Amino acid sequence: MTHTPTIPTSLEWHEDHLLILNQQKLPNTVEYLTLTNITDYYNAIVSLKVRGAPAIGITAAYGLAHAASHYETDNLTEFTHLFRRDKDYLADSRPTAVNLVWALNRLEQVLAHAQSVNEAKTNLLHSAIQIHTEDEEVCRMIGEYALDVLDDKRRIMTICNAGSIATSKYGTALAPFHLGRERGIGFQVFACETRPVLQGARLTAWELQQSGVDVTLITDSMAAHTIKEKGVEAVIVGADRISANGDTANKIGTSMLAILCHHYHIPFYVAAPSSTFDLSSRTGDDIPIEERGPDEITTMGGTMIAPEHVHVYNPAFDVTSHELISGIITEKGVLYPHFQESIQQTINLA
Amino acid sequence: MTHTPTIPTSLEWHEDHLLILNQQKLPNTVEYLTLTNITDYYNAIVSLKVRGAPAIGITAAYGLAHAASHYETDNLTEFTHLFRRDKDYLADSRPTAVNLVWALNRLEQVLAHAQSVNEAKTNLLHSAIQIHTEDEEVCRMIGEYALDVLDDKRRIMTICNAGSIATSKYGTALAPFHLGRERGIGFQVFACETRPVLQGARLTAWELQQSGVDVTLITDSMAAHTIKEKGVEAVIVGADRISANGDTANKIGTSMLAILCHHYHIPFYVAAPSSTFDLSSRTGDDIPIEERGPDEITTMGGTMIAPEHVHVYNPAFDVTSHELISGIITEKGVLYPHFQESIQQTINLA
Repeated sequence: MTHTPTIPTSLEWHEDHLLILNQQKLPNTVEYLTLTNITDYYNAIVSLKVRGAPAIGITAAYGLAHAASHYETDNLTEFTHLFRRDKDYLADSRPTAVNLVWALNRLEQVLAHAQSVNEAKTNLLHSAIQIHTEDEEVCRMIGEYALDVLDDKRRIMTICNAGSIATSKYGTALAPFHLGRERGIGFQVFACETRPVLQGARLTAWELQQSGVDVTLITDSMAAHTIKEKGVEAVIVGADRISANGDTANKIGTSMLAILCHHYHIPFYVAAPSSTFDLSSRTGDDIPIEERGPDEITTMGGTMIAPEHVHVYNPAFDVTSHELISGIITEKGVLYPHFQESIQQTINLA
Repeated sequence: MTHTPTIPTSLEWHEDHLLILNQQKLPNTVEYLTLTNITDYYNAIVSLKVRGAPAIGITAAYGLAHAASHYETDNLTEFTHLFRRDKDYLADSRPTAVNLVWALNRLEQVLAHAQSVNEAKTNLLHSAIQIHTEDEEVCRMIGEYALDVLDDKRRIMTICNAGSIATSKYGTALAPFHLGRERGIGFQVFACETRPVLQGARLTAWELQQSGVDVTLITDSMAAHTIKEKGVEAVIVGADRISANGDTANKIGTSMLAILCHHYHIPFYVAAPSSTFDLSSRTGDDIPIEERGPDEITTMGGTMIAPEHVHVYNPAFDVTSHELISGIITEKGVLYPHFQESIQQTINLA
């Protein structure tokens, strides 16, 4: 396999279509899909071909701006009517993804300031591109701060895929590895496979391999042994939601890694944009944990790997106590304990 | 699914053949195989249709005694010659399983005391049956001591399959659940699926389901969250080798569970027969950890679940520090810290 290392990205805007990486087919097939009409966008999000909250938000923004660019009317009221219909349609594609609604609302505010249909069409597309490029800048900043924080540590473990393909580029937890690769800083990354859906095996291992980063795949059960035997120096993970006291919801398995870090006296870092903070959640107890169906655990590629009718517990996320977190790396800087104060100062009052 | 709960067993002697459960086909197919000639026995062990050190030892003992019963000679010297040839053949089937060689050596000692071929044939078969029944008694005793130790704790987690089908009956770590079921003690067992080979999902979940024990399957990554959210009160696991200071080698993922128990202040128990102690290993550092090939992690039922050529680290076992072990449950009683002394007193001097 000889190819020039490239950081994979999940989407590319091409004036009259959006090109997206079909993450459902990774790692066996690298397929790009062309989205041209609003149904394409909706289906790509619903069917998880695009995943990762930032990438979903960006895709939806392009979808709405793109659809609006084709409305055949010069009447701004009629234009707004069509816009709202399509906005509601896209918002329904994955109602739990916070970034999706945030991005669509941002476009609606842009439309509210337009004086004509032409101005609206231009500004909506400009705004979608801005959401896209801003996210890349946010991720790059997180990567810069993460490189600072990791200092001379080179053997790092991660879980799930808080990567380039979950965002516009670079990712959050994986950003320092991509930036490091560009600068000749050689990280050795241990990727937990991330059962049950295997985002670590299917996505992170592939993404880092594409980018030329030295990545070693392990099962989640090997994390403790690997930290000890391979001298892992830090763990860095993404986040789905961070409460006001720093408690962090992320992919199931994350809190296990935090406990192992505490046991082995190595730092545990969370990397996430400031949009991940939910200050209406006072602590992790306020964060609902989604439970998913048993099939994700009992079947694999259509084959039963457990007995029929077995009881299954399948929480998709867990909450890591703020007490186990060494630092939260955001685009606004690194937050340290006590998180109640540092979050208040940097996120809430910024 | 209505059936009378029954503790599944891995093997049954039937005068002219051994019936074994084909563990390679679980949990999708429950298939029993008839072993009649020595090649059947050898192949059953080599191909992992029988697994678990005690079950392998019992199978090999039956195989050798069974083969010897058909030697067509009245000459004890010639009989012994044939016996040694077949013993060496079976010993090669899985050279790392300690119980295998131990069982075959025990038969050789029986042969050494025989005065005639007829006496040898009778005593060898009797000895194989004795090895079988002794193991069941050892497991039953471990189960009794485990019930004592677990006291009123009912929500218990385990990993891998230290079960009935890995032994003659009852198993080691799973023995208290089977005994409890017979006595109306209702345990709620959380079985970690045990990646990469999924012994928890394929074997433990099936075995406990068959036995009528309330079992819930989780991925290994869910252990921390499940202990916290479901109020798990103890973890109990088997062992592959225990060193003189109590450090315990067992299936990969075990040391993670021990660290989680320490964090959540719940006890962590090891259940194993006294034959598992290797007093020539001073500490866990003296126990070699087998590394296996990458395919166990990168493929599932023939399907690639990771990118091609990805680096993989695949240790099959880990070592749990004696400092994290609350007690070691053997057929001779429960050993408590300091293990150096309790092992010396109960195992070495017994």
